[in-house]
Amino acid sequence: MTDLRSAADVEARTDAIVRLLERHRVLTALAGRQQTAKRDLLEQMQRRENLAELQRHVRGLHPADLAGVLASLPTEERLIVWRQLPRREAGLVLVETAPDVRESIIANVDREEIAGAVAQLDADDLAYLSDALPRDVFLEAAATLAARDRTWIADTRAFPESSVGRLMSRDVVDVRDDQTIGDAIAALRARAALPDQTDRLFVVDARHLLRGSLPLQTLLRSEVTTPVAEVMLTHVTAFRPEDPASEAAQAFERYDLVSAPVVDELGKLVGRLTIDAVLDFVRIESDQDALNRAGLRGAEDLFANVRHSFRNRWPWLALNLMTAFVASRVIGWFEGEIMRLAALATLMPIVASLGGNTGNQTVALVTRALALDQLRGSRFRLVRKELAVGAINGVLWGGVLGVFALILYHSAALGAVLMLAVVLNLLVAALAGIFVPLVLYDWGRDPAQGSSVVLTFVTDGMGFLLFLGLARALLV
Amino acid sequence: MTDLRSAADVEARTDAIVRLLERHRVLTALAGRQQTAKRDLLEQMQRRENLAELQRHVRGLHPADLAGVLASLPTEERLIVWRQLPRREAGLVLVETAPDVRESIIANVDREEIAGAVAQLDADDLAYLSDALPRDVFLEAAATLAARDRTWIADTRAFPESSVGRLMSRDVVDVRDDQTIGDAIAALRARAALPDQTDRLFVVDARHLLRGSLPLQTLLRSEVTTPVAEVMLTHVTAFRPEDPASEAAQAFERYDLVSAPVVDELGKLVGRLTIDAVLDFVRIESDQDALNRAGLRGAEDLFANVRHSFRNRWPWLALNLMTAFVASRVIGWFEGEIMRLAALATLMPIVASLGGNTGNQTVALVTRALALDQLRGSRFRLVRKELAVGAINGVLWGGVLGVFALILYHSAALGAVLMLAVVLNLLVAALAGIFVPLVLYDWGRDPAQGSSVVLTFVTDGMGFLLFLGLARALLV
Repeated sequence: MTDLRSAADVEARTDAIVRLLERHRVLTALAGRQQTAKRDLLEQMQRRENLAELQRHVRGLHPADLAGVLASLPTEERLIVWRQLPRREAGLVLVETAPDVRESIIANVDREEIAGAVAQLDADDLAYLSDALPRDVFLEAAATLAARDRTWIADTRAFPESSVGRLMSRDVVDVRDDQTIGDAIAALRARAALPDQTDRLFVVDARHLLRGSLPLQTLLRSEVTTPVAEVMLTHVTAFRPEDPASEAAQAFERYDLVSAPVVDELGKLVGRLTIDAVLDFVRIESDQDALNRAGLRGAEDLFANVRHSFRNRWPWLALNLMTAFVASRVIGWFEGEIMRLAALATLMPIVASLGGNTGNQTVALVTRALALDQLRGSRFRLVRKELAVGAINGVLWGGVLGVFALILYHSAALGAVLMLAVVLNLLVAALAGIFVPLVLYDWGRDPAQGSSVVLTFVTDGMGFLLFLGLARALLV
Repeated sequence: MTDLRSAADVEARTDAIVRLLERHRVLTALAGRQQTAKRDLLEQMQRRENLAELQRHVRGLHPADLAGVLASLPTEERLIVWRQLPRREAGLVLVETAPDVRESIIANVDREEIAGAVAQLDADDLAYLSDALPRDVFLEAAATLAARDRTWIADTRAFPESSVGRLMSRDVVDVRDDQTIGDAIAALRARAALPDQTDRLFVVDARHLLRGSLPLQTLLRSEVTTPVAEVMLTHVTAFRPEDPASEAAQAFERYDLVSAPVVDELGKLVGRLTIDAVLDFVRIESDQDALNRAGLRGAEDLFANVRHSFRNRWPWLALNLMTAFVASRVIGWFEGEIMRLAALATLMPIVASLGGNTGNQTVALVTRALALDQLRGSRFRLVRKELAVGAINGVLWGGVLGVFALILYHSAALGAVLMLAVVLNLLVAALAGIFVPLVLYDWGRDPAQGSSVVLTFVTDGMGFLLFLGLARALLV
């Protein structure tokens, strides 16, 4: 068995590429200096040889592996590597790579290079890239396609982002329900090749309405004279192009699907959704979610230029500045108390911080339950449980802190105020941890993204207010 | 086409189950009260009818859908639903459901009920559940398996958690490389059924060494007299049982695999890895990651009891308490300054908060790059870029804050100190945002989990130190 794609091989080639790029950089830097013609010639030869070796390793990698390598390189080197590819592979790498990396390549090479790379893509891939390509490049590439393919691209682009329609492929193998297994096998053999992830054919009637599915293994195990309608499966999980892709992803996961038919409102077979497209969708979504949670708007390229990074990050910081400013004004009301007892300033961040952390634990649980659709008419029990956990944590950690305060500042009253503030703030955190994501969800916002800012705002503000307010009432 | 599993149907049945459980609760509560024998009889009948309807809906759901429903129910109702299932389905639901839900069921029903449910599971499913089952129940179920199956379970359990060996299935269809296509088809037909996700057969030689793979579509498209060795694919992505499952997941995603062979160190075919097991692994991992980031150790059941929740959450809070305490001691050094100028206490949380937020943006980028293996010998450029972004943000937002401080406290010096502290803390945040995840990664820790605590500790502590220290030097 020759295993061209073993992880070790990919690793070795990737390392080689990084090393050869390093060498290329050194040789290019040398070329700029004054020197004898003979040395110059020698170095030119070295550069050429170096690039040839680079090309060999680049071309030895699968487009998907190369897409990963490109993401790890700064823009200039990314372009050097991408340019080592034959046109068709260069196009496929654009399809495989992350959106931010794709954008950096398209923005930095000539129009003709992009046009050449995408010229040989099929309709599905071109439709996938359409939003990223310059308008005229896209139109030029689309013009070379058959009329049916052009219509397909226009149709799929009309579906909303993250819908099944955007992910589906037109590459469907169908059989008629009045055919026999022998007919179906003959039709299969007449095709040049079956599309990837073909685990079943879809059965349609004379009007092209979906009637069932026919697994390849049924084809293999049935007599050639058997009518298709007799052995086909009639329980088929089908999707509509307008269905959200996330719903389809859940179905693929639950029912262990490899491919599924897509039908229009009449039930006519219009396309096919496959596990590879679903898996890519899941990965890109969860990647984006993780970045959004940290306040990055887009999937920022690691080597994006400073201006781009700044644009990507400032809205979050501006929002954060506003909430921090409001929390700070809460403290401002108590400056008189703080001047009399500076220990208040020393201890108040702990109250806020513990509240933020317990609250975010609850937020994580509730957000997950919302994503998995697991919160059905049982909010009251959840509130009771979270309040109980908050109270226990409050008494425990508040007690520990109270003892510390007593030891450090020799004041039992200060210790008691601190403990009470921690208990109350953890109860606030438990309630906010439940209701902030629920309210965001009910408003149609993604609770995974906004909840943490709002929660921290509540627990900071209330933490300061409770601790300093109790101190004003009971201490100073 | 009858589409038993449409999302709308699942939704309707789920709603019906929730409604019927509600009714069951009311009827059960009524039964406890003193009343006439006649009413009692009537209510008993109603209860029975209600449960029968519940059972009908429960049995109409796919085990994977039912697993989702169970997770959304409190423990008692979860048990009522689970008990409506026939034994075999009850076992399958245990396999499909989340680990925390599974645990709550196993802990709350009789030993015999569990033993009955798992008695009919196949070796793969039993191996998957083995860690969750009581030891004696597992042994009893395993005893009914064939000797070969028992060995298989023992073998797979010996592989490390989250390895390919734990996810692979023994259900492999292989053909010999000296057979013909006709032989292979005859062998297929002789089997009762092909395992799910069989898109290809694996080709082995006389010593059972893996030689290649034979897609079902090749079987369909080749003449029956063709030797298998002639049409098989020899480029096969194969895994070793010891390989990390995450590596296999990446390969499945990159190369759009549906199934792949697992071979031992000699190259002998020992099992098969399929896309459904890989997809489940990816989902469980990313779910767990999201909870871990928020400081929950396990996948906490939404309706876990209070004690369990507390155990799941306290280590994070204890760690957080310690770091908050240290940051608070930093403030303690400056109590003299704070008593003279309380505005310092009011403004200091803003410096810390902005630092934490910018730092976490950098952490998110670096963690993602580490997860995707995209940080190769280019750390210096990254540092330069992040410092530049930090400086720009620092001057901008520090400037805004400085002006606010000037307006609120009529002190240009205070505004200048605030701005300077913000700029410096954002530079600290940029460096910490890069190096904290890198160092954790080099130490073999998961940077996605620990980075945020350490980073916030650094930016809080340094934020307070820089602002109050500058104030001591320049202001008070």
